[in-house]
Amino acid sequence: MNESLLDSTGEPPLPLGHPLAGLEQHVDSLRECGRLFHSRGWSVGTSSNYSIVLSNDPVELIVTASGMDKGRLARNDFVRIGPDGNPIFENQPRSSAETMLHVILADIPGTGCILHTHSVWATLLSDYFYGDRGFEIQGYEMLKGLEGVRTHQHRQWVSVFDNTQDIPKLAAQVREALADETNPLQHGFLIRNHGLYTWGHDVFSARRHVEIFEFLFECVARKMSLPQK
Amino acid sequence: MNESLLDSTGEPPLPLGHPLAGLEQHVDSLRECGRLFHSRGWSVGTSSNYSIVLSNDPVELIVTASGMDKGRLARNDFVRIGPDGNPIFENQPRSSAETMLHVILADIPGTGCILHTHSVWATLLSDYFYGDRGFEIQGYEMLKGLEGVRTHQHRQWVSVFDNTQDIPKLAAQVREALADETNPLQHGFLIRNHGLYTWGHDVFSARRHVEIFEFLFECVARKMSLPQK
Amino acid sequence: MNESLLDSTGEPPLPLGHPLAGLEQHVDSLRECGRLFHSRGWSVGTSSNYSIVLSNDPVELIVTASGMDKGRLARNDFVRIGPDGNPIFENQPRSSAETMLHVILADIPGTGCILHTHSVWATLLSDYFYGDRGFEIQGYEMLKGLEGVRTHQHRQWVSVFDNTQDIPKLAAQVREALADETNPLQHGFLIRNHGLYTWGHDVFSARRHVEIFEFLFECVARKMSLPQK
Amino acid sequence: MNESLLDSTGEPPLPLGHPLAGLEQHVDSLRECGRLFHSRGWSVGTSSNYSIVLSNDPVELIVTASGMDKGRLARNDFVRIGPDGNPIFENQPRSSAETMLHVILADIPGTGCILHTHSVWATLLSDYFYGDRGFEIQGYEMLKGLEGVRTHQHRQWVSVFDNTQDIPKLAAQVREALADETNPLQHGFLIRNHGLYTWGHDVFSARRHVEIFEFLFECVARKMSLPQK
Repeated sequence: MNESLLDSTGEPPLPLGHPLAGLEQHVDSLRECGRLFHSRGWSVGTSSNYSIVLSNDPVELIVTASGMDKGRLARNDFVRIGPDGNPIFENQPRSSAETMLHVILADIPGTGCILHTHSVWATLLSDYFYGDRGFEIQGYEMLKGLEGVRTHQHRQWVSVFDNTQDIPKLAAQVREALADETNPLQHGFLIRNHGLYTWGHDVFSARRHVEIFEFLFECVARKMSLPQK
Repeated sequence: MNESLLDSTGEPPLPLGHPLAGLEQHVDSLRECGRLFHSRGWSVGTSSNYSIVLSNDPVELIVTASGMDKGRLARNDFVRIGPDGNPIFENQPRSSAETMLHVILADIPGTGCILHTHSVWATLLSDYFYGDRGFEIQGYEMLKGLEGVRTHQHRQWVSVFDNTQDIPKLAAQVREALADETNPLQHGFLIRNHGLYTWGHDVFSARRHVEIFEFLFECVARKMSLPQK
Repeated sequence: MNESLLDSTGEPPLPLGHPLAGLEQHVDSLRECGRLFHSRGWSVGTSSNYSIVLSNDPVELIVTASGMDKGRLARNDFVRIGPDGNPIFENQPRSSAETMLHVILADIPGTGCILHTHSVWATLLSDYFYGDRGFEIQGYEMLKGLEGVRTHQHRQWVSVFDNTQDIPKLAAQVREALADETNPLQHGFLIRNHGLYTWGHDVFSARRHVEIFEFLFECVARKMSLPQK
Repeated sequence: MNESLLDSTGEPPLPLGHPLAGLEQHVDSLRECGRLFHSRGWSVGTSSNYSIVLSNDPVELIVTASGMDKGRLARNDFVRIGPDGNPIFENQPRSSAETMLHVILADIPGTGCILHTHSVWATLLSDYFYGDRGFEIQGYEMLKGLEGVRTHQHRQWVSVFDNTQDIPKLAAQVREALADETNPLQHGFLIRNHGLYTWGHDVFSARRHVEIFEFLFECVARKMSLPQK
């Protein structure tokens, strides 16, 4: 047995023939995200889904199966899906309807990982600023944790999309915003009263974006409640 | 020794003849709830009680013994009780007077687990909205974590009952609300300045409900403190 | 080697002749309090001190040595002290000047453990209500976690003493308040902008009191910030 | 193999010839700071940097490499740098541009460790009080956790510097404030919308300062939101 495939709790590799066999390190990196995000309160109640991009063209993803406790993901709580958002192997668990959003984000050049989380602060801000279709974050050093940002003077626009059960419609809106020539969607976005989508070139980068956005959301929300000077 | 009966800390199975022998997996799943809820601050100070339904007719439950630290439950910190809320074996520890609420909730068809927790946000909301006998939660994606809810547009009414030491009286009120034909009590309810009761078809489902309700309570309470737009 | 004297991390018992040899279980129960309280933010920055009463008459205590990180207490980070608040063995570490408060509280019949913690909410309330010399907590189910309290309708008065470097003066005030015939100090008290003292008949009971008071303090403080209904 | 050089997770010592070989205990003490501060939310998103002073004259430091997840630092995620802020060995990882601030603080007599963290409360206060160039903290018992402070009546002035990408300019301002004859910078300072710098004679002392400042920042910020009495 290849010891490098044992996870930190000694869980054995997936059996030969399993659609995810050989991909344990990818899967384990998402499981570790789940443990962290659940402990932070950003992925509770089986909310959230996470994916790793195996291929961009055509899109192939490893994504969390639907309805799992993100704090205790097992190695087989994931599914490989193709460009239509459906499993590419038989007898795999179902993934969320929102998988199509992952597919669209996987189309952004250089994207290796997509993380969708649900925090209290993200939820509150997404509703508070929905009327403006988003809000700007500016002046914080932590903005430099977003890929490619070199100064705290960066102005980060955080778009808020309306929540809907019509995922294809939402996916089309996101695709359009990504392709916007003057102000393309970057780093992440919110869905109203729902949560955050963010991405990066690998798990490390996407996970950093989650932490950066959550920190900034908390700053923005708490600052609104400080008394006027 | 059956290794599957060892708990994660290597604790041995309960001795033969113990009322809970053979039920270690049920007990351990509630102990894990206790560790999680205590670390979240939802079951501190020996508050809370948790139960698993062994049988619905007649009702038989495993329930936490009274006065235990929920973050450090041992395998014998539980008791088997019958339809009258009393232990069905001799020499068992006492359970809380509130056990009768568990008995009544165990009567709901398909109920496998009942969890009662005490969080700060639940406490605050239960008092704030007591005059209205409850409050509505609507529009949040996280509502879909409640069993059977398919859309964030779902309107969840959270009833608040008055707190009392007269548990039979409270139990009768809950039984009546569960049987209400037009607007039956669903998923959970609050007791004023006291805490949350929620349930599900198994521990996984009831635990998810606790996390969902706590997330939503925090959203509702924090939203009230945001400045007017 | 007596295995029951190994701590959970495998640390060996104290050497023969050490003033605390044979008392490892007492010491370890306080170390566990320290890990919990530090992780909760109630004992950060080497603040807090904890004691176990070995004898009431004359008073003999095990108390935390001064200046230790409460999240990482070692077995020899404690000292045995006598009725004058001084170590009763040579070459022991120093304990805090506040040890005299522990000595006075150890005089309360049945007291086995005294815990002093420093939380943000306790600090804020102790200042907010200092002008009233304290505040009342009433109506919360969690009050029943205080020893001897049987109903949420219990009215708990939380006295606030002024902070001072003159510990003998403070000790005299506390002693007087404990002896008050009409309204004796019970369960715990606050020192302004400083922290909580609470006690119980053993570590389990005193630790429960810390959790109960902290929960109630958070409720009282957050409730003040909710909008008027 | 010298077992005392194994870290708590069994990681082996750095190989002979590595610039940090033999300094594993220093490195591990900063890694432990990182785990703690990350879990507290004070060093998320790869923010923060920590250093240990190997020599004051000329200044030689061990400092965290740039861009690492502070919750999961490995032994080779550090770099030895000299008085110009540059690595003193070839083929080492890069450190942050802010390393020059560590160099300047290492010049304070008796400084053994410098910790830079990024918390939400520090960020909010640094902006709120920027117009006053800082704020005073007074009256809190926790102030006694700052080195040399003997009474809660101590008045701690917390300077706030403007944030800038021009680190040499910021470094000159800090150097000047440290040398101020009437009111020299002590214990720590804030950079606007950025974070805290604090230091001590060793890791234990600097880490205590982080915990003390964070506690006090939370008190100051939450107190501002309490209703008027």
